[in-house]
This record gives sequence, C-alpha cells and structure tokens, in this order.
Amino acid sequence: MLNKNIETFLGCDNDYGESGIVVFGAPFDSTTSFRPGTRFASKTMRGESYGLETYSPYQDKDLEDLAIFDGGDLELCFGDTQKALAVIESYTTRVLRDEKTPVMIGGEHLVTLGAVRAVARKYPDLHVIHFDAHADLRDDYLGVTLSHATVLHRVWDLIGDNRIYQFGIRSGERSEFQWGKDHVTTQKFNFNGLAEVVKKLQGKPVYFTLDLDILDPSVFPGTGTPEPGGVGFLELLEAIQKIGELNIVGCDIDELSPVYDQSGASTAVACKVLRELLLAMA
Amino acid sequence: MLNKNIETFLGCDNDYGESGIVVFGAPFDSTTSFRPGTRFASKTMRGESYGLETYSPYQDKDLEDLAIFDGGDLELCFGDTQKALAVIESYTTRVLRDEKTPVMIGGEHLVTLGAVRAVARKYPDLHVIHFDAHADLRDDYLGVTLSHATVLHRVWDLIGDNRIYQFGIRSGERSEFQWGKDHVTTQKFNFNGLAEVVKKLQGKPVYFTLDLDILDPSVFPGTGTPEPGGVGFLELLEAIQKIGELNIVGCDIDELSPVYDQSGASTAVACKVLRELLLAMA
Amino acid sequence: MLNKNIETFLGCDNDYGESGIVVFGAPFDSTTSFRPGTRFASKTMRGESYGLETYSPYQDKDLEDLAIFDGGDLELCFGDTQKALAVIESYTTRVLRDEKTPVMIGGEHLVTLGAVRAVARKYPDLHVIHFDAHADLRDDYLGVTLSHATVLHRVWDLIGDNRIYQFGIRSGERSEFQWGKDHVTTQKFNFNGLAEVVKKLQGKPVYFTLDLDILDPSVFPGTGTPEPGGVGFLELLEAIQKIGELNIVGCDIDELSPVYDQSGASTAVACKVLRELLLAMA
Amino acid sequence: MLNKNIETFLGCDNDYGESGIVVFGAPFDSTTSFRPGTRFASKTMRGESYGLETYSPYQDKDLEDLAIFDGGDLELCFGDTQKALAVIESYTTRVLRDEKTPVMIGGEHLVTLGAVRAVARKYPDLHVIHFDAHADLRDDYLGVTLSHATVLHRVWDLIGDNRIYQFGIRSGERSEFQWGKDHVTTQKFNFNGLAEVVKKLQGKPVYFTLDLDILDPSVFPGTGTPEPGGVGFLELLEAIQKIGELNIVGCDIDELSPVYDQSGASTAVACKVLRELLLAMA
Amino acid sequence: MLNKNIETFLGCDNDYGESGIVVFGAPFDSTTSFRPGTRFASKTMRGESYGLETYSPYQDKDLEDLAIFDGGDLELCFGDTQKALAVIESYTTRVLRDEKTPVMIGGEHLVTLGAVRAVARKYPDLHVIHFDAHADLRDDYLGVTLSHATVLHRVWDLIGDNRIYQFGIRSGERSEFQWGKDHVTTQKFNFNGLAEVVKKLQGKPVYFTLDLDILDPSVFPGTGTPEPGGVGFLELLEAIQKIGELNIVGCDIDELSPVYDQSGASTAVACKVLRELLLAMA
Amino acid sequence: MLNKNIETFLGCDNDYGESGIVVFGAPFDSTTSFRPGTRFASKTMRGESYGLETYSPYQDKDLEDLAIFDGGDLELCFGDTQKALAVIESYTTRVLRDEKTPVMIGGEHLVTLGAVRAVARKYPDLHVIHFDAHADLRDDYLGVTLSHATVLHRVWDLIGDNRIYQFGIRSGERSEFQWGKDHVTTQKFNFNGLAEVVKKLQGKPVYFTLDLDILDPSVFPGTGTPEPGGVGFLELLEAIQKIGELNIVGCDIDELSPVYDQSGASTAVACKVLRELLLAMA
Repeated sequence: MLNKNIETFLGCDNDYGESGIVVFGAPFDSTTSFRPGTRFASKTMRGESYGLETYSPYQDKDLEDLAIFDGGDLELCFGDTQKALAVIESYTTRVLRDEKTPVMIGGEHLVTLGAVRAVARKYPDLHVIHFDAHADLRDDYLGVTLSHATVLHRVWDLIGDNRIYQFGIRSGERSEFQWGKDHVTTQKFNFNGLAEVVKKLQGKPVYFTLDLDILDPSVFPGTGTPEPGGVGFLELLEAIQKIGELNIVGCDIDELSPVYDQSGASTAVACKVLRELLLAMA
Repeated sequence: MLNKNIETFLGCDNDYGESGIVVFGAPFDSTTSFRPGTRFASKTMRGESYGLETYSPYQDKDLEDLAIFDGGDLELCFGDTQKALAVIESYTTRVLRDEKTPVMIGGEHLVTLGAVRAVARKYPDLHVIHFDAHADLRDDYLGVTLSHATVLHRVWDLIGDNRIYQFGIRSGERSEFQWGKDHVTTQKFNFNGLAEVVKKLQGKPVYFTLDLDILDPSVFPGTGTPEPGGVGFLELLEAIQKIGELNIVGCDIDELSPVYDQSGASTAVACKVLRELLLAMA
Repeated sequence: MLNKNIETFLGCDNDYGESGIVVFGAPFDSTTSFRPGTRFASKTMRGESYGLETYSPYQDKDLEDLAIFDGGDLELCFGDTQKALAVIESYTTRVLRDEKTPVMIGGEHLVTLGAVRAVARKYPDLHVIHFDAHADLRDDYLGVTLSHATVLHRVWDLIGDNRIYQFGIRSGERSEFQWGKDHVTTQKFNFNGLAEVVKKLQGKPVYFTLDLDILDPSVFPGTGTPEPGGVGFLELLEAIQKIGELNIVGCDIDELSPVYDQSGASTAVACKVLRELLLAMA
Repeated sequence: MLNKNIETFLGCDNDYGESGIVVFGAPFDSTTSFRPGTRFASKTMRGESYGLETYSPYQDKDLEDLAIFDGGDLELCFGDTQKALAVIESYTTRVLRDEKTPVMIGGEHLVTLGAVRAVARKYPDLHVIHFDAHADLRDDYLGVTLSHATVLHRVWDLIGDNRIYQFGIRSGERSEFQWGKDHVTTQKFNFNGLAEVVKKLQGKPVYFTLDLDILDPSVFPGTGTPEPGGVGFLELLEAIQKIGELNIVGCDIDELSPVYDQSGASTAVACKVLRELLLAMA
Repeated sequence: MLNKNIETFLGCDNDYGESGIVVFGAPFDSTTSFRPGTRFASKTMRGESYGLETYSPYQDKDLEDLAIFDGGDLELCFGDTQKALAVIESYTTRVLRDEKTPVMIGGEHLVTLGAVRAVARKYPDLHVIHFDAHADLRDDYLGVTLSHATVLHRVWDLIGDNRIYQFGIRSGERSEFQWGKDHVTTQKFNFNGLAEVVKKLQGKPVYFTLDLDILDPSVFPGTGTPEPGGVGFLELLEAIQKIGELNIVGCDIDELSPVYDQSGASTAVACKVLRELLLAMA
Repeated sequence: MLNKNIETFLGCDNDYGESGIVVFGAPFDSTTSFRPGTRFASKTMRGESYGLETYSPYQDKDLEDLAIFDGGDLELCFGDTQKALAVIESYTTRVLRDEKTPVMIGGEHLVTLGAVRAVARKYPDLHVIHFDAHADLRDDYLGVTLSHATVLHRVWDLIGDNRIYQFGIRSGERSEFQWGKDHVTTQKFNFNGLAEVVKKLQGKPVYFTLDLDILDPSVFPGTGTPEPGGVGFLELLEAIQKIGELNIVGCDIDELSPVYDQSGASTAVACKVLRELLLAMA
C-alpha cells in the first residue's frame, strides 16, 4: 500500500490527537477592497515552507521537538461572509474543545472575527494583541459592517473597552484614530510599550492577531495594501518572542498575498514568522 | 480654468445627454472561487484602450462617428453581493429610463444578474445570448445561490425556459449540462447555429452577455479560470458582427483579469472586442 | 479526530488498493540545459486542477467514475541523475507489480527513462509513442549520455529499432533526424499517420510519453524551451483520444515549467490534457 | 445627467479656481538610457492612490482639508525632447501666472528642466533642492545635452553657481563629482546638513526636485536604474517635513517606473511620499 | 591567452571579411508612443537564441553552412532621433559598400528609415515589402514627423509611389488607409497576393521590413502594441520562404519587447523567424 | 573590418595578458534543491552592469584604472556535477598558473568547490572566508555529497580544521551548527569579529566566497532560497572593504537568480557588490 500525498506546513506533520497546536488555513478574501489574493496564502506557505529549516538559530529550538497538527484549509464560500465566518468559528470551537491551541493562517484580516468568536466564548476574560499597519477600527466600510477594515471594531463589540492592544499602526482615517483613543490602546508605528503590556497581561488568556503588513513593504511586498514605513523583520521576531511569554490561547497570521510576491521573499518571511511564532508558543 | 482629468474608454467621450450608448464599469469579483482580479478590468481597459485606433478595418466604421458616454465605475462594496447587485440594477434602470443602451464592463460574471434584473423589467419578452466557456447553470455553488457559477440559472429564474442561448460552452458539471437540456439552448465549443438564432430573434429585445473566457487562453490568458479549447479572435469578431443584427437592449463583457495579463495582450483583446461590439451595435 | 491535509490531482482521491491507475510526480530537472523549472509541475498541477471540472464534455466521461490514486511526489535528489532515475524505476516497478498503470507527471523529459526501464522489463514487447517538439535522439549532449536531449536514444537502447513512433517533431540537430531515419519512425510537425500506427499497435503493450512542448507556445508558453510552430490544443485532444484505443501500460506527461506561466494558462492546459488522458485510458 | 469619469490623485479633486496647488503629470521618458517606463507613473499613481488614506498619522494632517486640483497628464510627444519640454514649460507658466504652486509627477528626471524654466523666469532668485541617487551633472551624454543625465547641469545653466543643493547622491562619473565641487553643493549618500540648508534658504523661493531613486531599491525597486545603498522611507519623510518649512514655489517627484513594480509597493511609496509632500507644503 | 567573451546570434559567428550577411542590432525606441522596451530585443535574442537549433526542418538548411557576421549593437543615443538614424544609416552604408547584405534587429520600427536611406541611395530602383499590423503611414504623429507611426510614409518620401507593398495590416486611422490607396499597395489582414508580388519583383532590389506584430498576440505577445487578429507562425514562415525568392538587398525585423515576454515565447518566435529569414536569404 | 560583439562585465574589457584579475562565469545550478536559476546570473550581470558607473564614491576608485579581463562563461554540463567541477578547476588552475587572481561569478554555491580545489593546490596554507545565510556544512544532502548544501564541508575536507571563517549564518540544521563548532568559526547573523579575523589572517592566502543571500531579501530578493533577517547593503560594502585588506588569491560571488528578480534590483546589487569587490582587491 502506497501512501496518499499529505501536505503540511514544515514540521507540522503530527497526528491530531497527539498535538497541542492545530494549524489550519482560512482562505478567504471576499471583503478585500483593494487587491485580493490572500486566499492563496496558506496553500503557498505549505509548499514553500520546505525551503526553510525546522531549526531556529534565533530561539535555538526546533519544530521537530514539538507536536503540531496541520488540518489543511477550511472550505470557505466566496461572496457569503457570514457563512465563511461561521465555518471558521465552528472549526476553532472544535479545536478549543479538544484543549488545543488554534493557529489560523488567513486570508484577509476579517477571518480573525470567526476565530475570536469561538475563543471569546471559552475565555470571557480574553484580551487581544493586534500587530498591524492598519487600525481596522471603522464601524462600517461603504455601508458594510463585516469587512477587513472593521474587524477590530467587531472584536471590540465582543470583548469591550481596554482589552485590545494595537502596535505598529500607521494608516487609518482620522476618525478611526479618534474613536480608538477611547476604546483601545494604540501604539503607532512601532512596538514601544510592548514589554509593559506583556507584563500586565501575564496569566490572562490572550488572542494574538498578526497582520503581516505591519512589516515594511521592503521586507514584505506581497500583500494587498502595502504601507511604507513599517517595522523590520528582526524587530518583529523580537516582538514575537515577547508574545511567547504570554498565555496565547489562539492566534492568526494574515494578509500574505502570493500573487504580488514574484520573488517569493514575502512567502519566505511569512513562513519564518510562523515558525518563530510556533516555537515561541511552545 | 484648466480642466479636470476625465478618463474614458477610447472614443467614448460624449456627454450623457447626447449619447445613445452608456458604458460603465462594474468592478466586482467577490464570488470568484478560483482566482480573483476582474475588479480591475474596466479601469485597466480605459487606460490601455489608447493603444487602439477608433477606426475598425473589419467593419469600416469609426467610434468617432458614434455618440457614447462612459460613466466610469460603480462603487460596489466587496463582500456584500446583494448590495452590489442592487447598485448595478439601479444604475442600469436609470440608463434604460433615459432610453439609452447600457454596456457594462465586468467584473465577474455575476454582475450580469444586476443588469438583467433591470432590463427584464423593462422588456418582459427579453431573450439572452450568452457566450462563455462555462455553462454557469448551477443552482447553487457550495451552498451559495448568488455566484459567478450560478448566474445563468438566476437569469433563467427571471425569464424562464427557452429564452437563453449559450454558445462556446466547454466546461461544467455533468449535471449542469443535463439540467440545461430542458431549459436553455446550449451550443458546445463553438458558434454553430448562431446565424439561425439571430434570424429567429429578429426584432425581439435581446440582452447579450459575453464572458471573454469563451476565447481560447492562447488569445486571452488574462482571466481567472482559463479553459483551453476556446474559439479564436476572428471567430468571435464574426459572431459579434452577427449579434449586431439583433435588437440589443443591453449587454456586458466580463472576466478580464489584468493581474494575469503580464503582456497586456488580453487587455488589448478585451478593448478591441468592446470596440467592435460598440461599432456593431451602432 | 480531524483529518490531515491530503492533496491530490483533481478527482484522483481513491485509495491505492482500489485504484487501477496510479498518478505520481517526478519533480526532476537537473539536466535541463536551457531554463529549469519543470520540478514544480506536479505540485502546481495538483493545486490548480481544482479550477477544472471532473467532467469532460469532449469524451462525455467523468473522473468521478474512475478509481485513481495520487501518490504525491517522489523525493528525487537534484544533481545526481542516476539516483533520481533509480527512484523512479523502483516506484514504477512497485506499481506495475500490483497490476496498476503508472501515470507519471514530470519533470524534464529524462524522467521517462526511469519509468521505461521498469515497464520494458515487464513488457519485453514494449512499443513507445512519443509526442514532442524535440527529437531527443542525441547519443550524448555536451559529453553526457543521460540528458533530456538524449532520452529517446536511451529508450531505444532498451527496446531497439522500429519500436518508437514520434509525432510533432519540429526541432533537432540535422544529425538527429538522420540517425532517426534508420531507427525510429518520425512524423515531423503534426499527427499525420497516427491512426495507422494505432491500428498497427492494437493489442501490444504501449508506453506513451507526452512532452507538452509539442503544443504551440501560444497554447503552452510555460515550458523551458518554447518552439513555435506546434500543434493546437484540439489536435492534441483528438490524438489523445486515439491513443486511448491502445493498450497503454504506462505513460507520462512532461515539461510544464510553472515559473514561465504567469497567467496560469499553461498549467490549465496541462491539467486538462491529463484529465483527458486519464479518461481516454479508462 | 450622469457624470463623466474623473480620475484624480487621492484627495486632489478640487476645482482649479479654488485650489492653491496644481498637480499634473509629465509622462515622458524618451531620453532614459537604461530602462524606460516612467511615462506610466502618473496614471498608475492616480489609480493606486485609493489604497491610501487621506489622513497622515505622521503629520496629523488630512488632504481633505486642503484645496488641490489634479489637471491630469500633459500630452507629450515621444522622441522630440524640445517639444516635450516646451509643453511642460507652458503649462507650468500658466499655473504660476494664476498664483498657484505646480507639483509635477514625472516621468524621467529631464522633465524638471521644463518646469524650472518657467519657475526661474518668475523667480530670478530661485534655489533648487535636489534629492537623488544620481548627480545628473554631466554636460552631455553620448553627445546629447538634453538628457536625464544632464538635467541638473541644464538647471545650473539657468540659475548659476551655489544655487543647487544635492542630497543622497551615490552614483556618477568621477568627473561629475569633480565639476560639482565648484558649482553646486553635494551631500553624498544621506541628508546630513539639510537642516542647515533649510535654515539658510528661509524666505527664498525654492524649487524642490525629488528623484525617488534616492530611496534604497529595497524600499523602491520600481525604477529604471536601481542604485543600492539609498536612504530609508522614514528618513525621506523626515527630510520632506523639513522641506515643508521652505517657501516651495514648485516641485516634482520623478522616476517611478511601474513596469518594474510587480508588487505595487513602489507605487505605494510614491503615493505616500506625494501625500506627505502635499501635506508638508500646506 | 584566454579569449574574450564574444556574443553572437546563434550560428552567426563568422568573421566580417568572410561573411555575406551582416547582422546588427539597433536598440532604439524613443518615439514609441505606447509601451517602450524594444531597445532590449537584439541583446535578448542573442542570449536566448541558444535555445534553438541551427538546423531548420522546415527548409532543411543549417545556419552552420552559411557565413554570417554579427556586429553587435549600435550605440544609439536615446532622445535624439536624428542622431540615432544617422548612426544606423552610416553603419548600413559601410556594410553595403563592402558588398554585404545588412540584416538589422530593431528596435522600434522607425529604425527602418535609417537603413532604407542607405539602401535606397545604392539602389535607386528599390522596392519595399512591409509586413506589419499597423499601416505606419501617418504624415506626422502629434506633430512629429519622425516616428514609428510615420516610418512608411517617410520611406515613401524616399522611393515614391507604387514601390511599397504592405501585408497583414489590421490597424490604422481611417485617413491612413485612404492615403495609402493612392500611394502604396496594402493587403489587409493576411498575405493574399504575396506570390504575385514576388513574381512581379523578380530581379529587382527589395528591402524587406518585418514588424513582428504582424503575428497574432497569442503567438507573439511580447510587443509594445499587441493587435489581436494577426497571422499565425506557420503562415509567416511560408511568407518568409516566398520572400527568399527575391533579391533582398537589406532587411530588418522589429518590435520585439522582451519586457512584456514573461514566458520567453515571443523571443523564441523572433529568434526562429530570424533563423528562417537568414536561411531563406541564403 | 567591423568588430565582433564582445560582452564583458562593466569596465573589465582588458586583454588577458595585461590583466591581473580574471573574471569568469560558472553557470551551474544542477544541485539546487529549492528553486533553480542561478545559471543565468553571470550573463545577466554582464548585460545589466552598464546601468552602473565604473566610479565608486564609496572607495573613490574607478574600474577604469584597473586591468581586468572577463573570460565569459564556462561551458558546464547540466546534470553531471563532477564534470562541471572539473571544468571549473581546470580553468582556475590555468588562471593561477599565469599569476592572475580568479574571480568567479556563480551559479549555485557548489561551484566554489571547483575553484578551491585549484587554489588550495597552489596555496597549501589557504584560509577561507565565507559570507552566507546558510551554513552549507552538511556532510550529505539526501544522500548526495556534492551539493550546494554541503559545499563548505567539502572545502573543509580539503583544508581542514580552523581554516574556515563564516559570517552572517542564519539558517541550517541543528546538527550543522553543532558540527561546525568543532571545525570552523561561525559568526551567526552579522559581521561581528570580522576585523579581528582580518587582522589575524594578514599575509596569508585567503579565498573569499560570497553567497549573496547573506543580504536580507528586502535588499536581494532574487535568489533561490530567500532567508529573512540578513545584513544590509552598506554593512556588506563595509565588510568587503575590510576583506580588501587581505591577500585574496581567489574569490567568488554566488546565488543571484535573475528569474526571481522582476525589478532588476537584485542584479543591480550583485553588480555593485562585484564592482566594490574588484575595487577593494585592487
């Protein structure tokens, strides 16, 4: 008997039962207003991750020492946002019920909402750490309330004031920044203050959502809305290691758009960031 | 006083009031299941159309002799299909009320539904001629009823049996072809029988929907779902001139995806097809 | 228990035991002299095949009615040609021993040699039908005897005179064509005479090797050495249906290079050709 | 009456009469010696600028609070440099006559000459600040005196010694640097000394010409002649805010070549730089 | 003593003195109005030609049997059209003086004028055969008389009525076609009538200018202004063999733009066409 | 007599006899396990180097003052690693015998082995300085001992313990780093300690091998295996000037893959690095 062709992210080839972390893809980008394509991120990352090593010289840890399961991609219907979010929520709920940590690969940033719905139900005291170039705090976008541009506002609807900590924000409407002042904690441009936040949230359940466009487009051009002026790769690695000190009960990594990544360098960045995040969580 | 920057499709620079034809873009691709990008078609076509001439040596006609208005692109919200279709329907209704012929540049094929809703209300005896590689006759697609893959089924919901004539179809589920046998007229692979259909529909109001992927991908690679085995460019030109003998009360041209058109040749094809269609309708 | 992520070519998701056909990838291109990249073909085809339907309106057959297993990609070492061929030969031998038909996705054309070594051992009366732009009949290439440019000569070493039938050949050294006259049957440029060959080989075991660059680069630009002047897609489909009348005991489909396929149209061609080939063999 | 399709750079949709700043495009690249394509910059920037916000968190200002007119692109004949420069000069003269500030989007760097001819006539005491990777100080280039490589020498012909301040220069012939020592002020590699220059030029009329290739190609790959070793995005933003303290009577931003910007990141950089420049000038 | 690196087009490595044909490049595209890039054609063709064979199975001839010299690329100044044409004229004159036949690789189509100036001086009875998608018969283009769009009009200035035979023309202004009727012989769309023209011009000196965009963009996408509806590759080969029956005293092959040829298929076409042309002339 | 077309790297146009440095290309990438394409590096660099100047404002030196010969590319057979290495070794030996310094442009990193075999024979006391993202210290890779991933282990076979100094290493298997601790000196991530090494090796013969992927992919995306987190361009320039203080008896610069360099910025980096290296060695 020859075996079927199983494709996983690098080093995430354990069985479900034995794994503490569950990686899965959420290939959805229907509300993307500028340039779509993030639906291809998870599949592309699986294929390209084999250009990486499982060993990290940064953390001196190896994915081979961890037990991680890759469940592949959810089947998400394009053009029906509510249905897509429901599928994400349902899968996340299942993973949480089995006492495992969900690690979702987006997709556009709206997919975070599906996961947070499940996580916030299990952890009423949930806090959210949000790395991004964009505030994503609009209440609606062209009349639509479920959108990549409103996702953190929707998360706020679920968990309320002073639970969301944003870092790296460098783009938004004037009114978003103003609304944000009263409801969330926003660090513009960089990671200043992250150490304090991590200290403050020790022991609390934290959801970590990482929009990769926090990186400067020189490092990460392959995304739908490149925003010059972002953080560097090593700054992000350091911040992720800091995040690893928290009690992460769920996380996601979003907005790689391989269509705009001719050289493959952005996909390599996304893969390495995911490797470091998985190692930091272990 | 210097003038603002007005961008139109080649030769479509007349004022609204004096024009008999109204060109507009419907940049929507949220239900695209494979590779999105058709949202960029209308804008790209306007820019690239200036590589063309207004004069057609095929028809010995010139766009400069016609009065055509280009209204630009509709503002369509991504991720909310019903809203997007409503905007298209409303704009089309306005154009029809002013006794002008709407010519819509998609977008994915679902945009046709918005326009046909308006046209069918004005013309209860409407017939539809459909050029495409795909049957688009599913009743639902992954549980969703408003989709590029169901659009002709939705059109059939509006106008009923024996009103839809398909040409060039070379891809679909087995069940679509079976359903189609009882409800629409499908010519697989080519334009055989088009002359007879045109003769039969003389004088009747006809909506013409042209999915450019009817063309072979060698001629038109820049589309979301390339289907080898399509018709040639000159075959399509000839068919369009035939269509020009009908009473076209509305039409659209869909599925150019400039992201996949590195050479620009597909955009050039789309522009030339639109020029010839406009000239044939005159 | 959630399931692991299994990736197969469209409709080839049966278990090994129940399948009569075994698809597998041979991602090797180390001897490619001009532009490498065919190593990515099988993986890309699996991912993109979901833009296709399982149903063929050409043959009115459906992959869902067949039992086909996809074993994924062989792990082939780059830079050591003999080792790579040995792995291919070994896998093919295993498939043949289990009375299944191997269908290999290259890779460069040299991979054929690995498979034919296995097939010719089982079927001493083997004949080979070869579709290609290039004669591939050199005895050595820059001093190397195992090369994409010599592969049919190496096959001839195994099975001898008058067993190889080439079609579509439009490129080669003068001396290759001269040598070929005494040892193989070569139809230049097109498929003339294929019907006669098929009739003559009825009942005999036949290995079919399809270098996709037999297609014109307008249809199939995504290959290492594009050769203008090739056959059309529908011509190839027709020839493949003809091939389906033979007793095919093994086959391969080679030389897609996704790196040079910006639009994805070449990958779509390769996928559709493989679908039609699988259906024709059934 | 439906409206025509007006395309402007983000937030520059005011009428001419009410605007203090006039943006226009100069799509010319005929003297480019290496890789042409800057002719597409202004059109591409208009389209892509809608991925940006009008609000700048860097300066806490919003384009919506300013009155800026976008006059579209000049019609410049390719292959006749003198004619093209005359059209630029004439348009600029008109804008200056109406007491507005011209902001030109190139094109290759030679377009600066057309604008400076007009500006220097109005302001005999004109000084020029020049950000660039290249010195552009040759007297002729392959025997031609009007060239992107000679443009600052031509500007010097108009305004004379000690009026030109260059920053960021990291490429040129040995002889250019030598000539420059006697006639202009050149800061190699970076912005050291900019604050002093800004202090010194307080109140004087200044033309600011920004060749975007001053940026490192990691930040701005989409240009004809990428020169590794350039300044970073935030360094440039800071310098531009400094420039905003001057009496800028005209400016341009040049050398984006969208053909070489597969990811769109360079266009995003150009748009953001223009937004910040407009805000700084306000 | 090791040798320097000599780069020639495939098989054109003979010394000047012993060669009857002289190939050279004219990398100029300054008047291109739409998308520049043909300046890279000759260099790219030299490099890629090694993917071809020297032997043609179409003509059963081999470049190795001919004596052809490749002189490399002329140094042409961008932005000064008159100077560039003078350099081409001068080189061509030198080649003709040595009783060799010049074969020029453009560049945009205007380069033809430089060569024809030299050839027409030597052969007062010169006739011109022109393969192209575009009529190129304007008297001026945006006020400029030396332009790719006027080049055949400029050639007519030199040689007068009834000396120019155009084939394949499918694009132009209405007025160009009208002017052409009185001064040149224009066959629209295809090669009908070529055999008669070849018979009629037997023995006369003929300059042959081949704009590769006569080919359909499916075959040849890599050009500045793709015009759907062109001739096929095999049609062009046949026409070129016909041309080989004439007394060709000079020729050129123009308008390959490698920037728009992601797959390399267009460059392969250009190389093969040049090989067949050289073989046909022998 | 007109001249043949000689192509050299910028400013390397001297005759062999008069030159102290010999540049040559080794276009080989058959063992590349991830994404091939480095075979095109040397040819592409020659063509693109003319976008550079010969003068360096960093070192205030000019290539025109040096005598450097460019011997073009070796003819290396793909798929036969031993033969390819033998050709490199033989050419290098010849250059060394004539008392010149070989400067090789790879190709994949394995080409270094061919050159070091020759250099180590002449200089038994050879030391090696190795700049790279990858340790390249495996003993075998998928069972193959001659591979880009084993090349420094193979070099160690030749010269033994404590002769190899690595800088910038940020990727490898855990076991490679462990093995390295006993046999080579590895500086992870950056150039710390380089000054000390340079001081220590004063006067000794040193081979310098530069894998360009030591650079961050933001600076140098055009490579087969991009590794985020690398050094910057100016850091590398500084390190190279340091290297220039050594007695460099041979060197190479590897792993540019132009296929993945859509913007050309990576090729520009490679060219500038080579210019600075040549100037530093002078």
